[in-house]
Amino acid sequence: MPTLEDVKRAYERIKDIVNKTSVLTSRTLDNMVGAAVFIKCENFQRVGAFKFRGVSNKLLQLSVEEKAKGVVTHSSGNHAQAVALASSLLGIKSVIVMPDNTPSVKVDATRAYGAEIVRCSSNIESRMETCKELADRFGYVVVHPYDDDQIIAGAGTAALELLREVGDLDYMFCPVGGGGLVSGTSIATKGLCPNAKVIAVEPKRADDAYRSLKDGVLYLSRYPDTIADGLRTSLSRRTFKIIQENVDEIITVSEKEIVDAMKFLWIRMKIVVEPSGAVSLAGVIKMSKCVKNKKVGVIISGGNIDLEDFFHKYYDRI
Amino acid sequence: MPTLEDVKRAYERIKDIVNKTSVLTSRTLDNMVGAAVFIKCENFQRVGAFKFRGVSNKLLQLSVEEKAKGVVTHSSGNHAQAVALASSLLGIKSVIVMPDNTPSVKVDATRAYGAEIVRCSSNIESRMETCKELADRFGYVVVHPYDDDQIIAGAGTAALELLREVGDLDYMFCPVGGGGLVSGTSIATKGLCPNAKVIAVEPKRADDAYRSLKDGVLYLSRYPDTIADGLRTSLSRRTFKIIQENVDEIITVSEKEIVDAMKFLWIRMKIVVEPSGAVSLAGVIKMSKCVKNKKVGVIISGGNIDLEDFFHKYYDRI
Repeated sequence: MPTLEDVKRAYERIKDIVNKTSVLTSRTLDNMVGAAVFIKCENFQRVGAFKFRGVSNKLLQLSVEEKAKGVVTHSSGNHAQAVALASSLLGIKSVIVMPDNTPSVKVDATRAYGAEIVRCSSNIESRMETCKELADRFGYVVVHPYDDDQIIAGAGTAALELLREVGDLDYMFCPVGGGGLVSGTSIATKGLCPNAKVIAVEPKRADDAYRSLKDGVLYLSRYPDTIADGLRTSLSRRTFKIIQENVDEIITVSEKEIVDAMKFLWIRMKIVVEPSGAVSLAGVIKMSKCVKNKKVGVIISGGNIDLEDFFHKYYDRI
Repeated sequence: MPTLEDVKRAYERIKDIVNKTSVLTSRTLDNMVGAAVFIKCENFQRVGAFKFRGVSNKLLQLSVEEKAKGVVTHSSGNHAQAVALASSLLGIKSVIVMPDNTPSVKVDATRAYGAEIVRCSSNIESRMETCKELADRFGYVVVHPYDDDQIIAGAGTAALELLREVGDLDYMFCPVGGGGLVSGTSIATKGLCPNAKVIAVEPKRADDAYRSLKDGVLYLSRYPDTIADGLRTSLSRRTFKIIQENVDEIITVSEKEIVDAMKFLWIRMKIVVEPSGAVSLAGVIKMSKCVKNKKVGVIISGGNIDLEDFFHKYYDRI
């Protein structure tokens, strides 16, 4: 399991290629929840999501031989773009396995960052098999989106930056899907600020982590049906163990609570946040009784959302 | 004409009630234009626009008698909300004259900040007359959106903050409509950093300021037809004079250039910016040959855009 020291080392390693993302505050939000809330905007991270941190940390530690061979991963989301961009910047070949049903805008964006795209069927078995096949055949290093200590340590640097900027916190809120971000966040937070409570927030419609922590059994995510598409994945044994040790509580939020938080972020705070990214703020708003008069950190995980339709509808006649 | 000292005094006066707004940068943008670009995000200002700065500076300087009587203005946009909120915070009564055709979402938002709303016909004469009538009858102080030295000095505090944070600039880009923001911006910029060029950017479809500066004659804006609704107004003699003295150049941008800049800000930089707010960045992109290797400041004026439709369409079935 990575330690605070690993997160600090990851930070030194990646700090020149990642964005030091802004911390935003809102008087309206503070009044609404009766707390001092500090929002860490990983939607401002390169490729629009925290994923770039972990991947950078991973790739920077590959051996010369590994770098020469290249990397492979399967993803239709932010992880794909993070691997594509970080690889390009470091001069490493990257191959991304993307399911057939991936929107072409995402395929194009990933290719534009310099990755080679390999299509596969849209089920998880096909994704994993295709990825493994390529790794076996060409010797590529597989970059898992979260089940990896270096990815986790890199993800933890967002919380590290936040805590270094605003000082000790009473609460840290973070979304949970596969558990990579909340693992890194909880390690950084408990390490720097042991009295802070770490709260993971999960969509009610994909509540496998919530049930896993409650029952002490690792459940897989089955038929998750949430707009928070980044949080449909299951924990791994590694992230489950870290969560059991470091996370104080997992709470769930409804789809409406996610949309309301998203609306607040867009309309009042003027930032573009994807549904998964708004889940942590939905948790803060839901817990407003508990956080009253406290100092609260919130990790906003990303802001990648398809706006082509929106611009097409409102501005294409221009 | 206000001086740099007036802007500095305005800053000391208002600094506790305005937001110190973030300065954002983007590696993609810097690569695209070949310059170091610093974006001052007044869309993060209270009420979502720079207007709150000038109004706060104005209201804080009213006499006890004036404060007791109250203020009046006519506006259907950001100025209305700025007057409403600043008045509420300072315990001053505010009356906003809004045309009949103002969207109810804006009327409601202005009322929610604590203003009394008076409706009028949608032509400019009716707006001005209604406003004057109320001022005469009840002794309210009229708060003009830009033709006022205190409003201009307050507006200049955004550039002051930017320059104090990032140091000297080679260029400062700012949108121009009525000219209040660019007046304050140019005074602050030329005062702190005399070698910087101040470039005002205007929609081609509302190019009255561009033509006025070129011909040395104050033209009124006639039938402006631009999506940048905040920039449809005409200069006043006061702002025209300041622009003649302080602004190096006015350039115009097409509707498509405005939309492209807006898309960049939303999709790549993850911030919500209204069309008028994107005009200055459109200017930077258009001038990329001139600004190569330079240090460039950009004032993003605001981020108020109706997103009800968007959320309704994509998320209301949740």
